[in-house]
Amino acid sequence: MDAVSLERLLEEVRAGTKPVEDAVAQLRSVAVSGDGDIRVDLHRELRRGFPEVVYGEGKTTDQVVRAATTIWEHHEALLVTRVDGDTAKAVCEAIPGAEANAVARTVTARRGDAAEAVGRVAIVTAGTSDLPVAEEAAVTATVMGAHVESINDVGVSGVHRLLEQTPVLREASVVVVVAGMEGALPSVVAGLLDAPVIAVPTSVGYGASFEGLAALLAMLNSCASGVTVVNIDNGFGAGYAAATINRRTTTTQ
Amino acid sequence: MDAVSLERLLEEVRAGTKPVEDAVAQLRSVAVSGDGDIRVDLHRELRRGFPEVVYGEGKTTDQVVRAATTIWEHHEALLVTRVDGDTAKAVCEAIPGAEANAVARTVTARRGDAAEAVGRVAIVTAGTSDLPVAEEAAVTATVMGAHVESINDVGVSGVHRLLEQTPVLREASVVVVVAGMEGALPSVVAGLLDAPVIAVPTSVGYGASFEGLAALLAMLNSCASGVTVVNIDNGFGAGYAAATINRRTTTTQ
Amino acid sequence: MDAVSLERLLEEVRAGTKPVEDAVAQLRSVAVSGDGDIRVDLHRELRRGFPEVVYGEGKTTDQVVRAATTIWEHHEALLVTRVDGDTAKAVCEAIPGAEANAVARTVTARRGDAAEAVGRVAIVTAGTSDLPVAEEAAVTATVMGAHVESINDVGVSGVHRLLEQTPVLREASVVVVVAGMEGALPSVVAGLLDAPVIAVPTSVGYGASFEGLAALLAMLNSCASGVTVVNIDNGFGAGYAAATINRRTTTTQ
Amino acid sequence: MDAVSLERLLEEVRAGTKPVEDAVAQLRSVAVSGDGDIRVDLHRELRRGFPEVVYGEGKTTDQVVRAATTIWEHHEALLVTRVDGDTAKAVCEAIPGAEANAVARTVTARRGDAAEAVGRVAIVTAGTSDLPVAEEAAVTATVMGAHVESINDVGVSGVHRLLEQTPVLREASVVVVVAGMEGALPSVVAGLLDAPVIAVPTSVGYGASFEGLAALLAMLNSCASGVTVVNIDNGFGAGYAAATINRRTTTTQ
Amino acid sequence: MDAVSLERLLEEVRAGTKPVEDAVAQLRSVAVSGDGDIRVDLHRELRRGFPEVVYGEGKTTDQVVRAATTIWEHHEALLVTRVDGDTAKAVCEAIPGAEANAVARTVTARRGDAAEAVGRVAIVTAGTSDLPVAEEAAVTATVMGAHVESINDVGVSGVHRLLEQTPVLREASVVVVVAGMEGALPSVVAGLLDAPVIAVPTSVGYGASFEGLAALLAMLNSCASGVTVVNIDNGFGAGYAAATINRRTTTTQ
Amino acid sequence: MDAVSLERLLEEVRAGTKPVEDAVAQLRSVAVSGDGDIRVDLHRELRRGFPEVVYGEGKTTDQVVRAATTIWEHHEALLVTRVDGDTAKAVCEAIPGAEANAVARTVTARRGDAAEAVGRVAIVTAGTSDLPVAEEAAVTATVMGAHVESINDVGVSGVHRLLEQTPVLREASVVVVVAGMEGALPSVVAGLLDAPVIAVPTSVGYGASFEGLAALLAMLNSCASGVTVVNIDNGFGAGYAAATINRRTTTTQ
Amino acid sequence: MDAVSLERLLEEVRAGTKPVEDAVAQLRSVAVSGDGDIRVDLHRELRRGFPEVVYGEGKTTDQVVRAATTIWEHHEALLVTRVDGDTAKAVCEAIPGAEANAVARTVTARRGDAAEAVGRVAIVTAGTSDLPVAEEAAVTATVMGAHVESINDVGVSGVHRLLEQTPVLREASVVVVVAGMEGALPSVVAGLLDAPVIAVPTSVGYGASFEGLAALLAMLNSCASGVTVVNIDNGFGAGYAAATINRRTTTTQ
Amino acid sequence: MDAVSLERLLEEVRAGTKPVEDAVAQLRSVAVSGDGDIRVDLHRELRRGFPEVVYGEGKTTDQVVRAATTIWEHHEALLVTRVDGDTAKAVCEAIPGAEANAVARTVTARRGDAAEAVGRVAIVTAGTSDLPVAEEAAVTATVMGAHVESINDVGVSGVHRLLEQTPVLREASVVVVVAGMEGALPSVVAGLLDAPVIAVPTSVGYGASFEGLAALLAMLNSCASGVTVVNIDNGFGAGYAAATINRRTTTTQ
Repeated sequence: MDAVSLERLLEEVRAGTKPVEDAVAQLRSVAVSGDGDIRVDLHRELRRGFPEVVYGEGKTTDQVVRAATTIWEHHEALLVTRVDGDTAKAVCEAIPGAEANAVARTVTARRGDAAEAVGRVAIVTAGTSDLPVAEEAAVTATVMGAHVESINDVGVSGVHRLLEQTPVLREASVVVVVAGMEGALPSVVAGLLDAPVIAVPTSVGYGASFEGLAALLAMLNSCASGVTVVNIDNGFGAGYAAATINRRTTTTQ
Repeated sequence: MDAVSLERLLEEVRAGTKPVEDAVAQLRSVAVSGDGDIRVDLHRELRRGFPEVVYGEGKTTDQVVRAATTIWEHHEALLVTRVDGDTAKAVCEAIPGAEANAVARTVTARRGDAAEAVGRVAIVTAGTSDLPVAEEAAVTATVMGAHVESINDVGVSGVHRLLEQTPVLREASVVVVVAGMEGALPSVVAGLLDAPVIAVPTSVGYGASFEGLAALLAMLNSCASGVTVVNIDNGFGAGYAAATINRRTTTTQ
Repeated sequence: MDAVSLERLLEEVRAGTKPVEDAVAQLRSVAVSGDGDIRVDLHRELRRGFPEVVYGEGKTTDQVVRAATTIWEHHEALLVTRVDGDTAKAVCEAIPGAEANAVARTVTARRGDAAEAVGRVAIVTAGTSDLPVAEEAAVTATVMGAHVESINDVGVSGVHRLLEQTPVLREASVVVVVAGMEGALPSVVAGLLDAPVIAVPTSVGYGASFEGLAALLAMLNSCASGVTVVNIDNGFGAGYAAATINRRTTTTQ
Repeated sequence: MDAVSLERLLEEVRAGTKPVEDAVAQLRSVAVSGDGDIRVDLHRELRRGFPEVVYGEGKTTDQVVRAATTIWEHHEALLVTRVDGDTAKAVCEAIPGAEANAVARTVTARRGDAAEAVGRVAIVTAGTSDLPVAEEAAVTATVMGAHVESINDVGVSGVHRLLEQTPVLREASVVVVVAGMEGALPSVVAGLLDAPVIAVPTSVGYGASFEGLAALLAMLNSCASGVTVVNIDNGFGAGYAAATINRRTTTTQ
Repeated sequence: MDAVSLERLLEEVRAGTKPVEDAVAQLRSVAVSGDGDIRVDLHRELRRGFPEVVYGEGKTTDQVVRAATTIWEHHEALLVTRVDGDTAKAVCEAIPGAEANAVARTVTARRGDAAEAVGRVAIVTAGTSDLPVAEEAAVTATVMGAHVESINDVGVSGVHRLLEQTPVLREASVVVVVAGMEGALPSVVAGLLDAPVIAVPTSVGYGASFEGLAALLAMLNSCASGVTVVNIDNGFGAGYAAATINRRTTTTQ
Repeated sequence: MDAVSLERLLEEVRAGTKPVEDAVAQLRSVAVSGDGDIRVDLHRELRRGFPEVVYGEGKTTDQVVRAATTIWEHHEALLVTRVDGDTAKAVCEAIPGAEANAVARTVTARRGDAAEAVGRVAIVTAGTSDLPVAEEAAVTATVMGAHVESINDVGVSGVHRLLEQTPVLREASVVVVVAGMEGALPSVVAGLLDAPVIAVPTSVGYGASFEGLAALLAMLNSCASGVTVVNIDNGFGAGYAAATINRRTTTTQ
Repeated sequence: MDAVSLERLLEEVRAGTKPVEDAVAQLRSVAVSGDGDIRVDLHRELRRGFPEVVYGEGKTTDQVVRAATTIWEHHEALLVTRVDGDTAKAVCEAIPGAEANAVARTVTARRGDAAEAVGRVAIVTAGTSDLPVAEEAAVTATVMGAHVESINDVGVSGVHRLLEQTPVLREASVVVVVAGMEGALPSVVAGLLDAPVIAVPTSVGYGASFEGLAALLAMLNSCASGVTVVNIDNGFGAGYAAATINRRTTTTQ
Repeated sequence: MDAVSLERLLEEVRAGTKPVEDAVAQLRSVAVSGDGDIRVDLHRELRRGFPEVVYGEGKTTDQVVRAATTIWEHHEALLVTRVDGDTAKAVCEAIPGAEANAVARTVTARRGDAAEAVGRVAIVTAGTSDLPVAEEAAVTATVMGAHVESINDVGVSGVHRLLEQTPVLREASVVVVVAGMEGALPSVVAGLLDAPVIAVPTSVGYGASFEGLAALLAMLNSCASGVTVVNIDNGFGAGYAAATINRRTTTTQ
């Protein structure tokens, strides 16, 4: 149940065309859907501005499909993350119009006009191997209504590649920086801008990168003020936070 | 050199009242100030929207005072963090009007009207022991021009204390959540709101808290979408990021 | 040899119908069974209230079957954990009436009336991906004679889902809480109840969850008094401890 | 507000001698007490069976005294942990009848008859250096109404010392085992008993004990089924959990 | 070149039947054999009492076979560790009389009379899953000339199983104790004996065992004096050290 | 664009045969090549003395081939690292004359006379299992123009093998030492020489080697002054640094 | 009660001059001495060959003195470790003839003829800073009856210093090697000898030595076969193990 | 004994003015000096090009003074590191002309003409708090004969400060980069240069910097090819390696 449906319901209550008890029952019945192993939080969009997202890892294909279809029945948008090809295909078959992204390992669906993207979220990667994580961030921010701009392969060992992109970066309302190995890129980017910077460490690297730990620690210790950080390889979380900030910046204009 | 001074300078260039070479010399001369052990980045406000901040840890009192006075000579605002009582006193003596905060371990100064705080940054703590970190966040956001609202001691073991505060939280443009021990509070807070949530792990705890590591890991793994995280005890970083988001939300209104 | 058989033996000794030396020999001969690579502790039920449990990991199918059948020959109940499908099948073939649970990766058998479950152990999960661990806990507590109540998918990012379940939770003699990622759920649950709470971290998550370490540390640092913790993914241990507490609560009624 | 006061209030409501609105106001007013930096959760005893406990670490003496006196005004029992000598003295001066325990670093107070201890909680230590943690557990369980039995210095390198104590241990409703270094004692103890065993790792040791990490990991990996674990040096948590289990075992008799 | 061959050579020098320069050349030529990727240390037996051992991990089958045959050409004994089935088979084909042990993942060969085993090395395991590591220790000690006695599955959760074996253990010149999970067994064993105890942590376990780290730390922190420790799963190292001690104890008799 | 091409271009500018604007355009156009997911830094050779190196891990075969061919179009040398057999083959097919090295997992190409290797880089390994990492170092140094000398299998447990090689080592301008397990070899080597020593820890080992961490820490703590260290298994980095030092030593002769 | 006293007692039993019941009572009464916080294991010498050792860390002076005097009343030897100057002085005052060693932080006492030291334990240090740990090992081995030979400051960065000592080392029955930093010395020493080698990592170092962890890991991963390891800074444990081995080697001669 | 003295000695042997046996005796007698706790390696300059350096940490003042004076008696240069003020003063009193540096915590002495510094070692710091480590590097390189150039406070959050220094950096034969927090500076510096870059992580930072671990890992994972790394805060090691490289570059000119 999204905000529009809710408003309509409450208007009916106010107008006296719907008895209070009916409204209560209707609200309760949709608040939580599912039984046994899955409990979809249908009021999440009301609280958080976006429906519950389906995290595919560790769920069976059947569980993912059931969760996705339940959400899609009650909302205008759908995001499923961390799904392999077979599960993605099963969701797309169950939900006409859903789109799978093999690089990002996501499935998305959105009712209404997709052209109405607002604001500007810049997503920057240090190297080509960071692309899948950046793509997950881009898909997430896009399905949440943001306009996304990607700048790839501008790692700090050739810092001029990055400096050339400063004008583009300065137009963003929020910047997501994706980097593995030593994770130095967010510090350099944040030093150039007054926009919020969200850093995403990736597991790109080997040996003492300890599967992204080195990049994570580097980002947490950034000497550039105000960099905030998400989990290793958590493109989704960065895209979500960026879209949240972008939306506020834009809607208050 | 802040944006106003810079604009004035460039206007003079455009008007022909100041030769280009003079402008160049003037810009260069103020871009970096200091010599030997300290190199103050005077153009930082132009790039980042706030002057360089003095991080007091590991610097001598003399080094802190020199850096602070150099910044104050060229800017409208000053923030010094992680200073003990003696150094704070020395800065306050060197800069009339500067204020020390013993709990936050900061010194701040701000020219102009302090009443013009905008927006609303909510700062929430799990327990009383988290106050010094929260205070550092509050001082930082305040000196950067934000209105700050504090909600203390609402840890998750008595979750009703937090739920009662939901209406207040919903009015914030951004929420900073400060917690030690198991660091669970940001997940619960973020689940209630559509505002960006910045989590600050603290070193409050003992044993397997490993001086804040437990809270840090918990926050990085939050099941609530879009929580971003700063370093352990980094109230400054959280306050800085919050003020940056708050300013954008507000100024675009 | 369970308590009933032992009592009968000792009665015979007391009655003089069985010579002491015979009793000694009989006791010794059953105390430890097996040779070479397996040494089944047949007196464990006497000391601990439940027969030795077969931990399947790292054992060959043949070793598991031999251990299971030896235990089943001398006891009323059998629990085998961490077995794959093939081994489970082999055990079920060797022991008529044994049941395999593919989600929990267990095999159980129980002589007598299974309807006599007592007390109430509540098992709560944060998300759908935590189900296999919760199932191992449920199977364990059940075979040890407890009545089990399951509450799934009530993670802290939608805390109202949990609060709705408070009445059900309050009826439990002991509560097992299973959660991965940031592991915050036990703190919130324990804050609502006066029953003992046993927390089980799971390896659900990625990146800085470090295969369950984040959840483990969070649970060990719970700000809710009296939460106790078992190993990552150790549904068995939590179920065992819960059944032990449940039995004491119940049998002393 | 404890259960007795609450029942009296509700009886008055039922009897019609107290208007509903008055009762609501009275309940709300006592639910949370305090302002600014401390927010005492006065309903905690209703939910959890024992008033909020004051954790002294990281709080000023003034904050501890204010929290303690607020709790003592509304409850029959008081527990303050992790306080140094000066703070303990200040609390004792503010609360007549309060008792400080220098080894356990606690202050306790209890109205009514202290002789009414019930059940039996056994607290076992591996070595003399583990005593302060064991004492914190003992003080906690005692103030919560449990009868405590202590067995000291029975580490596994002289396992006969422990085996001699088996009869005493078998009488306990729950056993707390406190050990540093290799943390092996809980496994051996649990192997002898059918009572719940709560393991407390201590920071006793050096080098690769990593301030209790070795003992913590050992206890989490116990080969004895059903051992549950609390944080390093968390005598309070173990005592709290033990008293909770002991109370249930006893009150249901 | 073993001690016997060397003595013969030096006798010839002393007797004048072999010119000094010839002896020097002969010694040098056998000191190091191999070229390119392998350099066999043929004097190792002279220095250490046993020929170089071939560690198979990370070597190609061809490299293992070349190293093994070079050693076997110059020595009375051969030990190859950490080899898979194919490599083991290739070595056995190249060296008639060599024996592969699939559980221990070793190949051994020994010229002369295998019945002349001396002393007594006891090898104790906590559980059935520890057998492969114990077997590697047993094979190593045996090929180095020790008599080995195995005692299996006597973990500390049923400590009576171990105590029954005390008489057997007391006859050993050195005891190797192999355990995973909490690694408590060496402390209990060492507390019973005056023989040297060598502890071998295994990677048996899951979750917070961190692939043997928990057991390793426990053993390093043993409260039983004088326990020494080898690497996780290093049955070879324990067997080698035990055989070295056993030989000294025996040969000095 | 390498130094020779650049000089020619600038000469034309100086001679007036090429307009400045043309030169600028030409320089810019080659500075960065590629679009979308790959951005090749073509000026890197000017800054660093060697073209950008293609790190194959985490890139698709197509991405590796595109990056490699772009570099090869503008430079005299090419190095691709961390590629599997299929990708190596695809690169070799795209670039005639390129050579794959299966042990080092590299592809290299070099225009001009390969015989002009200069200086002497010694590469020393502790054991046969360290060869792949050493080979990566050797390939890297060779393609960068260094003469490489390899000394294998001289681990510290037979220190005489190493001492015999001292004369060879003393002729090197820089020494790379590759070792896994306890990583002791660089300390012993550095103690014998006045040349710079670069240590490469490898992931050879098991258990508490923690995939190379033990060797890495040992090398960072070397008691031999001036040893510098690269990442675990980073043969490439060591070879690169060695060639850089070797070139300086040689070209200044 | 030591072996001599025990034999005398048993002889009296055999001779009929002491009734069995008396002997049993006498044995029991001395088996464990102490009450409350200390429980001295008086039978330990019978089982382990040396009386219980008092570990001073974390005990009060009073507790140490009581434990030490109780042991000294029943045994021929006494060892107290990890005591500061004041406690050492108090023990020496309570036990005439006891000797404190300020470097090793020990107190020892021994009845009978100290000249009867047997065998030879070599103790080798890498650097001067390792001396306190080596001294603790030397004191321990000496009070247990071993002859100790010390070789100091022969770290691997000047390996010739060590090689010169090979003849001395070859005479030892067991060698203790003490080293901090990279902990490489045991590997080199073990490669030269056929005696058992016990490695002791020390906390000497800084940064990535992580207070001895680097040395510990290095020693556990030694490429020299058969090195066994004790805890960081555990000179006592190494000395104890060495004396145990030395005694066996010697007494069987 | 330095190279000049040695050559003179050997010349006398060749000329027949000194008998071989005298030379041997003389060489041996100076090779190792000291007894008991200190063993100075007097041949180290011959092997390594610089005398043994005295590491002051963990040594008594007396031990430091004895080691320093022994070295100074036989060599032209002296370096003592990690000494506090009192020890530094004692060394300076014992060795006329020695100089203490309080920031670097060193004492140095050098015979002959100090003006003959050669080459150019650049030492770059990220922030003012990194100065003590940089100073240790500078003192070390200087006493080893290098000309040192310092560039301070050019952290990556204001990358233009660094880019301005590129021309200065390009003149160095080797660059040492000192940085704490996220340790990103070496990657950016190395990307600009073709000189060898040695990275020194410092313990500057807090929380998840884990006392320099974050910076260390970042530097080991540098995406800029060929960066080599030394231990945390190891200014000495970096200065030593830099001087070694600088000397080779220069002396071969």
